[in-house]
Amino acid sequence: MGKIKAAIIGSTGYTGAQLAALLYNHREVEIKYLTSKTYLNQKYSDIYQNFNSISDIICTEDELEEISKNVDVIFLALPHGIASKKVTKEVLYNSKVIDLGADFRLKDKETYEKWYNVEHFSPELLNEAVYGLPEIYGDKIKNAALIANPGCYTTCSILSIYPLVKNNLIDTNSIIIDAKSGVTGAGRGVNLGVHYCETNENIKAYKISSHRHTPEIEQELSFALNKKITLQFTPHLVPMNRGILTTSYAKLNENVTKKDIVDCYFEQYKNKKFVRILKEGIYPETKWTKGTNFIDIGIFTDTRTNNVIISAAIDNLMKGAAGQAVQNMNLMFNLDESEGLMTSGIFPA
Amino acid sequence: MGKIKAAIIGSTGYTGAQLAALLYNHREVEIKYLTSKTYLNQKYSDIYQNFNSISDIICTEDELEEISKNVDVIFLALPHGIASKKVTKEVLYNSKVIDLGADFRLKDKETYEKWYNVEHFSPELLNEAVYGLPEIYGDKIKNAALIANPGCYTTCSILSIYPLVKNNLIDTNSIIIDAKSGVTGAGRGVNLGVHYCETNENIKAYKISSHRHTPEIEQELSFALNKKITLQFTPHLVPMNRGILTTSYAKLNENVTKKDIVDCYFEQYKNKKFVRILKEGIYPETKWTKGTNFIDIGIFTDTRTNNVIISAAIDNLMKGAAGQAVQNMNLMFNLDESEGLMTSGIFPA
Amino acid sequence: MGKIKAAIIGSTGYTGAQLAALLYNHREVEIKYLTSKTYLNQKYSDIYQNFNSISDIICTEDELEEISKNVDVIFLALPHGIASKKVTKEVLYNSKVIDLGADFRLKDKETYEKWYNVEHFSPELLNEAVYGLPEIYGDKIKNAALIANPGCYTTCSILSIYPLVKNNLIDTNSIIIDAKSGVTGAGRGVNLGVHYCETNENIKAYKISSHRHTPEIEQELSFALNKKITLQFTPHLVPMNRGILTTSYAKLNENVTKKDIVDCYFEQYKNKKFVRILKEGIYPETKWTKGTNFIDIGIFTDTRTNNVIISAAIDNLMKGAAGQAVQNMNLMFNLDESEGLMTSGIFPA
Amino acid sequence: MGKIKAAIIGSTGYTGAQLAALLYNHREVEIKYLTSKTYLNQKYSDIYQNFNSISDIICTEDELEEISKNVDVIFLALPHGIASKKVTKEVLYNSKVIDLGADFRLKDKETYEKWYNVEHFSPELLNEAVYGLPEIYGDKIKNAALIANPGCYTTCSILSIYPLVKNNLIDTNSIIIDAKSGVTGAGRGVNLGVHYCETNENIKAYKISSHRHTPEIEQELSFALNKKITLQFTPHLVPMNRGILTTSYAKLNENVTKKDIVDCYFEQYKNKKFVRILKEGIYPETKWTKGTNFIDIGIFTDTRTNNVIISAAIDNLMKGAAGQAVQNMNLMFNLDESEGLMTSGIFPA
Repeated sequence: MGKIKAAIIGSTGYTGAQLAALLYNHREVEIKYLTSKTYLNQKYSDIYQNFNSISDIICTEDELEEISKNVDVIFLALPHGIASKKVTKEVLYNSKVIDLGADFRLKDKETYEKWYNVEHFSPELLNEAVYGLPEIYGDKIKNAALIANPGCYTTCSILSIYPLVKNNLIDTNSIIIDAKSGVTGAGRGVNLGVHYCETNENIKAYKISSHRHTPEIEQELSFALNKKITLQFTPHLVPMNRGILTTSYAKLNENVTKKDIVDCYFEQYKNKKFVRILKEGIYPETKWTKGTNFIDIGIFTDTRTNNVIISAAIDNLMKGAAGQAVQNMNLMFNLDESEGLMTSGIFPA
Repeated sequence: MGKIKAAIIGSTGYTGAQLAALLYNHREVEIKYLTSKTYLNQKYSDIYQNFNSISDIICTEDELEEISKNVDVIFLALPHGIASKKVTKEVLYNSKVIDLGADFRLKDKETYEKWYNVEHFSPELLNEAVYGLPEIYGDKIKNAALIANPGCYTTCSILSIYPLVKNNLIDTNSIIIDAKSGVTGAGRGVNLGVHYCETNENIKAYKISSHRHTPEIEQELSFALNKKITLQFTPHLVPMNRGILTTSYAKLNENVTKKDIVDCYFEQYKNKKFVRILKEGIYPETKWTKGTNFIDIGIFTDTRTNNVIISAAIDNLMKGAAGQAVQNMNLMFNLDESEGLMTSGIFPA
Repeated sequence: MGKIKAAIIGSTGYTGAQLAALLYNHREVEIKYLTSKTYLNQKYSDIYQNFNSISDIICTEDELEEISKNVDVIFLALPHGIASKKVTKEVLYNSKVIDLGADFRLKDKETYEKWYNVEHFSPELLNEAVYGLPEIYGDKIKNAALIANPGCYTTCSILSIYPLVKNNLIDTNSIIIDAKSGVTGAGRGVNLGVHYCETNENIKAYKISSHRHTPEIEQELSFALNKKITLQFTPHLVPMNRGILTTSYAKLNENVTKKDIVDCYFEQYKNKKFVRILKEGIYPETKWTKGTNFIDIGIFTDTRTNNVIISAAIDNLMKGAAGQAVQNMNLMFNLDESEGLMTSGIFPA
Repeated sequence: MGKIKAAIIGSTGYTGAQLAALLYNHREVEIKYLTSKTYLNQKYSDIYQNFNSISDIICTEDELEEISKNVDVIFLALPHGIASKKVTKEVLYNSKVIDLGADFRLKDKETYEKWYNVEHFSPELLNEAVYGLPEIYGDKIKNAALIANPGCYTTCSILSIYPLVKNNLIDTNSIIIDAKSGVTGAGRGVNLGVHYCETNENIKAYKISSHRHTPEIEQELSFALNKKITLQFTPHLVPMNRGILTTSYAKLNENVTKKDIVDCYFEQYKNKKFVRILKEGIYPETKWTKGTNFIDIGIFTDTRTNNVIISAAIDNLMKGAAGQAVQNMNLMFNLDESEGLMTSGIFPA
């Protein structure tokens, strides 16, 4: 069998560039298309000069139906509201699709339209799309035609507290997720908010109670417990390129012990290669996940307050985006889940 | 009347250096002593070269009783456990003392000894010491002989939620304070944890449920409500030199509206020069407080979760330490509270 | 006598903001106007929130002739090519003008037009304008109506090697200035080049052999020796907010000793408050000048290569722009040169 | 044939950790030993948590003769002065050795002892050792038993100007190399100089005219021209984790044109996979080489000064240390030079 032929649509954002880096290193993949509206007809390695001597591809247009005829898998790395127009039955007939954007993550069209403030153009695909969190939906992913790759904050948040919710260990009215992200999370677009001198040496919260990853986290936790969950999610911008750290809080249900909690995390993530439950007392740090597909999870309880506190770290462009997309691709093409992903990253990076 | 003669004991830590910078700029103060064990007999401006052409002082020993005879005010910037030995009745007879360390902050000797794991050597002074948070204890500070200058996280945390607690607007069992600090908060001592390459491009939580500022915050909020409060406090280390941001969460009591909350903040901090309640929708950012004595407070509510979320920012070495100490000194010497402190700082710094 | 009434034209760039911070702290100055095209009619403290509670001024238009009637001094912080149109005889009749831009720095119109690629609209003012480097032109500045405030790289470069050139100690064909700047030097405009993630964790050279500060450095050194000097100037962008470091190289003339060199620096900068010649073996670091008006100079020689190497550091927004402008203003209004400027800055900032 | 069995001696410094990351990803290598004095008997992945789930090795002692019996190649990542004691004839009989330290780089014992201020204990090996710069000594490396892996500054400096010297295009008395390095270059040892708050937001020169990489650069350039060359080398510390940028200057010999220069670079580095000569006008940036084994070279001339200016960038831990060591290993074991190294790295990292 030949290599998997791949296209990256919207390849010149940070997520697209991370994906290109992973796929060029992946021994079972051949990149056929890198598309870009902004840099149309330019050499990819002139835009991202780290690909000089690695890639010879010229950026082309995102003619999805045409491209789908020539590749095995299409990765979409586009702003929300575009994929729901572009992904057609025909595209899905020709090729598998992994959408790194938001359009197919929320199962409920109204919720999507309320939080994203745009119309959804292909609601008929919402049920077909599989939510691409392999630690939870691994089996479904293997047979999926269309993957909704989870958001960055979302991946870290859901994996952080999924075992607590699923095993009914916490008061789900008390969930608070305080999240911190590096600046790549804001994308490569230019505006005063990402000017070096405005971001460097500064931290701030933003979009308190209104960030779009909120309903996505709520959806998946609600599915876990089979009960509607509403929670508090607060993102912060941290002066570093990469990394997400979430600190999640909840009140423990009566008589739940630290041991109960730890046990259920080990049980939930047994055989999950990319979940690392840290030893007692070790704190997750984003630096140890940088450039890797791992999530590091630290479990803490406070007997004074009866809270459980979960601290978790990922690389937002890896397990939070492109790494997870490749993990999904591996599953869809019957490769080992970790093919091309089992790296320590580099440190200090 | 002459200038206020001042000594800084432990002047070569970051807090001491910030204090020296403020006092050299203060038109009513003359620095007489800068003491240092580590840099004994060295020129202060050889250690902190920004004082070259500003300061000619040679670092001396911290003979507190001797020094107290020759100055009007002594600032202590020492590790915990030392001030409680050094501050004697005689010292306090000779001079006013502002302790930037932890030894006199907790009114309860047992709580101090439990959280700090050292013996307290002058418990008889605990009642005499005034907690130096001018926005709350302004009147007492004016007549105090001994000031316990609050901690950095503490200042930001207490001022953030004091009005909510005092006015009984929240469920005090639900308080969570998620705090983020720049690296100066860890001091100037060298260890792998503050090595540039280990701290840069990284964020982590630390001391979950065990940070020593916790009982200090709880003490002051308990005083506000006259009821014992226990809360969750989580510090994080952020890759920047200065700044603290706290994101505080609590469940609102029934029928409390956003307007109730905003009103009570404006009422509480009426005429408090260094508290800036931000306009609706504006997020505090540490950069705007850098080099200043201000605390910026943003008030948010979430009707979906019934939480109030307070985001607040300070400069940990200014309002969180040396700036507040000067504010206390101003009050103790009948100067305008803001003398030498009403600066915009510089931006971008 | 009342306070000096001042206007800042183009007040919302980084230079303008630093100038506003200095003037609000200056006891002899009252700011009357802060103008801005971009933020017209907005409150200054809404743009730079560090001025919240400090400034109530609303940004207005830059009607220079009108403004000049109501103030004593006008600071221009504008892109090149604008001041040469706006500064008229009438403006100069009404008010003193300190131009922080490039339009009046080069005495030779053709040189200006060649390097800046725009027409100069008021060549008749070029001779009247005094080059505002107080350590060299202090006496002329006192009586000037129009000051051409030097560039940031320029200030650091000229002060670094002026004594060597003036005293004929080096081969002037061999001068190389390798300069490194923080990102504020690039201004507050948004483009991909100053996106946080593109600038952070990166260093690069730019504009090799073509940077516009080159002819300005050459002009002043040529004046010093009364002979045309051509030199190599290379700027680099460093991932930090503020600071310029220049490393300057030249071959020593025959029989010139290290002592000769050191002596002539001390002689040249005798009584110059803002020049700090560092002790033997101490290296300038930008951090020690941050927020101050000092230049730190370290003198090194290499007997193996017969080179002299001068390392020098400034804060590009202070001694390299706004601080120097205030120093010039002080001289023009018969104040002590260091009024409002003799600060240690804060560290770590 | 089985995998190459490898040992890293001194594996817990930054160079050792980078080497471990590369070797774990290398399909032809199996790591057998990771030694560490500081972390003896500790799990490698507890020290560098990015290796959690990747490495199970426990750090052992560096019994070199014993280890050499069980491996095919030994990498030494030790402070200078140790390898010259540890590498014996017996070790070299058993195993190939790649020394990433300085002990075997300088061919002249006296020069080594003068610059490094220690005795050299195995001068008899100096001639046997091959200087491990594959772009120059590729053929010798293939048959070497002992490789002296070049220094980080050295690699970037030599490759930058080697073609100019070898082809006699410049006045070799005029060479100046102004180098800038990220903080990993200073190693993982803790001292005030690498404290986050002392290094962040700061740039400084250090060791002017006395850095130990100077004689190493001079040696190789002298070999190229077969004439003793003395040059100026100045290192600077830049606030970033990784990366070296060198800006090199020299006077052109008469009648040398830009085209002559460009041609000789392309000729010199023809078929050298890891040398990327950038297009006219493109500046090297360290970010594009981060995590890769490439050197990016930009060629500039200035007709005003008759200087050639070469700007070049590498990752100091990759092409400047561990990457180059793996490149050497590949050659020594008849693998493709780029095996395990042909990566784009990740961006932004």
